[in-house]
Amino acid sequence: MAMKLRDGRQRVVIEDVTPQIDWGSHPVRRVCGEEVEVSAAIFADGHNQVAARVLYRHEGESSWRFAPMEPLRDDVWKGVFTVDRLGSWRYALLGWIDHFATWASDLKKRLDAQTDPELGDAVLAARRDPNADLNVGSNPVAQDIPLALASGAILVREAALRAQGSDAEKLLQIAESLEWLAGEKRSFYENPCDEEIERLMARYPDLTHATQFEVELPVWVDRERARFSAWYELFPRSASPIPGEHGTFRDVERQLPEIAAMGFDIVYLPPIHPIGRAFRKGPNNAIAAAPGAPGSPWAIGDRSAAPCAPLGAEAAGDCGGHKSIHPELGTFTDFDRLVKSAKARGIEIALDIAFQCSPDHPWVAEHPEWFQIRPDGSIQYAENPPKKYQDIYPLNFESPDWRGLWNELYSVFEFWIERGVRVFRVDNPHTKSFAFWEWCLNEIQGKYPDAIFLGEAFTRPHLMYALAKRGFTQSYTYFTWRNSKSELESYLEEITRPPISDYFRPNFWPNTPDILHKTLQDGGRPAFMHRLILAATLSANYGIYGPAYELQENAPARPPAGKGESEEYLDSEKYQIRQRNRNAPNSLAPLITALNRIRRENRALQSNTSLHFHSIDNPNLICYSKSTPGFENTILVAVNIDSFNEQTGWTNLDLEKIGVSASGSFLVDDLLSGAQYTWRDRNYIALRPGIQPAHIFRVSRMQ
Amino acid sequence: MAMKLRDGRQRVVIEDVTPQIDWGSHPVRRVCGEEVEVSAAIFADGHNQVAARVLYRHEGESSWRFAPMEPLRDDVWKGVFTVDRLGSWRYALLGWIDHFATWASDLKKRLDAQTDPELGDAVLAARRDPNADLNVGSNPVAQDIPLALASGAILVREAALRAQGSDAEKLLQIAESLEWLAGEKRSFYENPCDEEIERLMARYPDLTHATQFEVELPVWVDRERARFSAWYELFPRSASPIPGEHGTFRDVERQLPEIAAMGFDIVYLPPIHPIGRAFRKGPNNAIAAAPGAPGSPWAIGDRSAAPCAPLGAEAAGDCGGHKSIHPELGTFTDFDRLVKSAKARGIEIALDIAFQCSPDHPWVAEHPEWFQIRPDGSIQYAENPPKKYQDIYPLNFESPDWRGLWNELYSVFEFWIERGVRVFRVDNPHTKSFAFWEWCLNEIQGKYPDAIFLGEAFTRPHLMYALAKRGFTQSYTYFTWRNSKSELESYLEEITRPPISDYFRPNFWPNTPDILHKTLQDGGRPAFMHRLILAATLSANYGIYGPAYELQENAPARPPAGKGESEEYLDSEKYQIRQRNRNAPNSLAPLITALNRIRRENRALQSNTSLHFHSIDNPNLICYSKSTPGFENTILVAVNIDSFNEQTGWTNLDLEKIGVSASGSFLVDDLLSGAQYTWRDRNYIALRPGIQPAHIFRVSRMQ
Repeated sequence: MAMKLRDGRQRVVIEDVTPQIDWGSHPVRRVCGEEVEVSAAIFADGHNQVAARVLYRHEGESSWRFAPMEPLRDDVWKGVFTVDRLGSWRYALLGWIDHFATWASDLKKRLDAQTDPELGDAVLAARRDPNADLNVGSNPVAQDIPLALASGAILVREAALRAQGSDAEKLLQIAESLEWLAGEKRSFYENPCDEEIERLMARYPDLTHATQFEVELPVWVDRERARFSAWYELFPRSASPIPGEHGTFRDVERQLPEIAAMGFDIVYLPPIHPIGRAFRKGPNNAIAAAPGAPGSPWAIGDRSAAPCAPLGAEAAGDCGGHKSIHPELGTFTDFDRLVKSAKARGIEIALDIAFQCSPDHPWVAEHPEWFQIRPDGSIQYAENPPKKYQDIYPLNFESPDWRGLWNELYSVFEFWIERGVRVFRVDNPHTKSFAFWEWCLNEIQGKYPDAIFLGEAFTRPHLMYALAKRGFTQSYTYFTWRNSKSELESYLEEITRPPISDYFRPNFWPNTPDILHKTLQDGGRPAFMHRLILAATLSANYGIYGPAYELQENAPARPPAGKGESEEYLDSEKYQIRQRNRNAPNSLAPLITALNRIRRENRALQSNTSLHFHSIDNPNLICYSKSTPGFENTILVAVNIDSFNEQTGWTNLDLEKIGVSASGSFLVDDLLSGAQYTWRDRNYIALRPGIQPAHIFRVSRMQ
Repeated sequence: MAMKLRDGRQRVVIEDVTPQIDWGSHPVRRVCGEEVEVSAAIFADGHNQVAARVLYRHEGESSWRFAPMEPLRDDVWKGVFTVDRLGSWRYALLGWIDHFATWASDLKKRLDAQTDPELGDAVLAARRDPNADLNVGSNPVAQDIPLALASGAILVREAALRAQGSDAEKLLQIAESLEWLAGEKRSFYENPCDEEIERLMARYPDLTHATQFEVELPVWVDRERARFSAWYELFPRSASPIPGEHGTFRDVERQLPEIAAMGFDIVYLPPIHPIGRAFRKGPNNAIAAAPGAPGSPWAIGDRSAAPCAPLGAEAAGDCGGHKSIHPELGTFTDFDRLVKSAKARGIEIALDIAFQCSPDHPWVAEHPEWFQIRPDGSIQYAENPPKKYQDIYPLNFESPDWRGLWNELYSVFEFWIERGVRVFRVDNPHTKSFAFWEWCLNEIQGKYPDAIFLGEAFTRPHLMYALAKRGFTQSYTYFTWRNSKSELESYLEEITRPPISDYFRPNFWPNTPDILHKTLQDGGRPAFMHRLILAATLSANYGIYGPAYELQENAPARPPAGKGESEEYLDSEKYQIRQRNRNAPNSLAPLITALNRIRRENRALQSNTSLHFHSIDNPNLICYSKSTPGFENTILVAVNIDSFNEQTGWTNLDLEKIGVSASGSFLVDDLLSGAQYTWRDRNYIALRPGIQPAHIFRVSRMQ
């Protein structure tokens, strides 16, 4: 086993470095302004003192910046740096033997020993009169000091060579004074080192034999919305106020004030591209659509094959497919206006990118090689034998022209980015190749570091994590199917702690157009309330599919015979227009508004890493806290997850986790009800479904 | 962030590969004949079936061998290969989309659907008469089958091109018959695939777009004694039967029958090199040695500076230092005889290599640059100011001639290897550079893969693990200082499980010449018994410093004033000759003999990975089991760790871990007492210190 021979004098070992994902194969993710806390085991042979730094730089910087590392315990060191710019960063670790610190510490021991009574009378005599011209040999300790001082002088002279200007001069002076002192034959020496010398020497360490950790570890820095966002999904085609009319971007624009008032900052639209005609689906996913049925926005086709546009063809894009707009929604001018109006209200428009094609999509004719061709020359549609989904042609990521395909898919994102979109929800990313995502997201984020991608993969854990590692900014989760207390606690503990929290950012959706969970079907309004509160306070990113959510729509589709229950909506908006009265008196808009205000006003709720579950003696009550690092802001939440019955219980709070001292009481303000209580570790709680399903407390330390 | 573009058609992802140490920076360790069980998350986009292999090879092999991997759960796959040769191995993982398996599974669904009653009358009609010439169009399922068969034929034809000889012919025939069948217009098709086709196709997979895990992971394979050994440390100079005489290798040779009878397989000798004269230490570590004091064997000096040899100078080596023999011990001829006699009894002689020098060591004169030079030109001795260890010059691993130093140290091992030694105990390896060990141990083991190194680092955990990662075959541990039940359980759980157990092999020593623990000082014979039993059954590698152990020597040195207790022996053999009556009636030799016999006869005790602690309701009783993978051999141990009082308690056994069924009872044979009991999960135990301090049961399933 032949070894590469580095300089063998690199005595420092650096191991167990965190944060890192797969030995630097993928970046750790942070948002701008956050700290990266680096930890590593750093040590060397023998008893010399070790020093270490974390080196870091943005890819746009030509040289490393550095921050000191400090030992914590058991050879584990910690260092911190702040990422103050979007994009790609790297960090590295450097450790070295600190010969000066070793020398200074040894010298201090020697000097202290001069007055150690165990070492005999000569020491005591010296102490009585430090200047006494004793026979040097009579103090065996002081005897060794001149040589030690001479060794130190050598180290300081070497540092002077590494320094410049006045520092170099100062170091030379120090070296000279050590040499002078070394020449004195005394029976007692004072310590010539002071803080200034230590500071100066620390500034010019000897890095000749420093060890750099073998991998430079990548960090990706997103903007803050990557970590903290509230999404609102709506179907523009349902947005018209005129009964029976197809909604437009202009209709959505008119709804922006209400959505902004509820406090959302991202409005996400299902695919806005022309809907395919071939094998178009009818209401409730019927295989045959009646003429005039609007079809599913996820069956992306060619507008020229669907010449139903009430508006000018040019304005909606000629090419069809993923770079054009469904004509009934409006024109590019309308779309641009919508993006701009939204921005003026602090809202971003997110587009849904679904990489699949209806048979009349232009790619099918222009690039049949991007699809799987059957032996009879036809293109393979989606199927799960014997079921056929003839309205969908999946892309073939084993295409011989995979480069052409990748470039075209990339260009779809870039097309919309150039129209001002920076947030994308990606449909079923796990059915497209991981290698493609890794390349595509890196290319886009390298060019547009403010781009945000929400990956829709409600799938196997390894796949979800693999997508996040490869660049998805946020990820859908299993939250929708985690409804019991133990499910919620164990799932949240998995995803909010390192290493997963270092790259995976959950986005909690209590409903989506595809998922109406049984908890909502059965639990009605109380269930919609508590699931909303859980989503908005457990996860810094959350979203709802509205207005179905505000209006608590909970009728499920009838499942196929013998297939148990369905999580699909009855009369799903995926296949038909669903106009609604958004101002219905039972709307949850007031609760949503309150939650989004609480989230904005409390930094504790804007990230997940501090999430801690507290004990409460009722399986229908769940209690947790989040706080800022210094407990400047601490939120304590208790939720009744039973939609039907009042639940009561006693908390047993982990006071350390909410920043209050173990003894005594503290104040909590319920940000939902306005009430104030005096609490301690054990408190009685009673929560009523639909009425007061939760407390969201801000914790104040008692004065 | 520019990405390297691999072939984008590699759709399979391989992550979370175990076993691996620091992304392949260091090898996983196994012994010859063991299995390496590899696990990884392996998956791809979409719904295609995935297949995977583990590739592996010894460094002496030019091409990979491979073993199939099978899915376990949640995208985690497992594969196993056996390492049948000493030395350096590598393994890699290969995953690919199995288009044939995907096709075969889809085809089966299509064929099954032909007889799905939900699909209508035509299906039922076809079932009644498969050969009926129905209108094909009347069975919508059968309609799709010819095209599917044609697709399959293409896959089989491609496989035929990858195959040779009769396999290629068979595949071509299969392709033709699929094509023929595809040309038939039937209303019902039988499945043309059988096991033979599947086996043939699995033999010739399409690996064009296979993904290989990015790192080839190293495995180091030692011989079995690396994992399972019993060490006996003795000072040859104390081995003379004649009172007052300096013992010799010949005296040790005469003791071999007794040592072999006790069942040890490694006899380890403290350094056998000439002992330095300069600043030689006297009895009980006295700073000044009286003339004629034998000194410490760890102060390695120059024989020419110590011309006291009763034997011919040539025979003991001229050069002095680490490649010569202390003349009073004998000649090279004597040493060679000892090695040979030991081997004849199944014992290996282990040498203690202590890389440090007495001031009269030849390296000091010949290579002063290998030491640290002080400003006055003198060589720096070891010190911990104000304490001085002037008899020891540490080597300077920052020497400008570090390559020369490394080569010389390497040559010390090789020198003794060429004299037949294959086992080394390395003194204080953590005070020599880690980079040196990594290089040196790799070089030696690359050339002599049967070499075994026991690292003496009773030090901080990260350092101990770092040394093991860099090639130490076995490691001293904290066992000596882990005496309570909770200490033992938590420490053993740390070191016997992956990832640590993948590279760190503990060797448990209840005593050493440096450590006489308070448990032994205070507990006397009962303590010596239970600590011996713990060492020999908890760890597959263990050792004792004898005959101090058999004879239960437990008098500690008097500590320096005000320094609390000492773990040093009184009149330590490190500084003086200690002749003993090995046949004293109170010797623990019978217990040692029994334990080593039990270890040899029970494979369960020959490794640590199956160690499991069972619940027992008394903090002074500890209960654990070890078993072979298929429970062919299962050992259950219960030990009273209180040296003074009888302890009783009830077990609550984890029956799954001892391979017996949850209900009912089983037989246990006490291998120490010969008694047999019928046990179940809950059993009463009473153990008396010094009399019956432990049960060591072999578990038998009831017939």
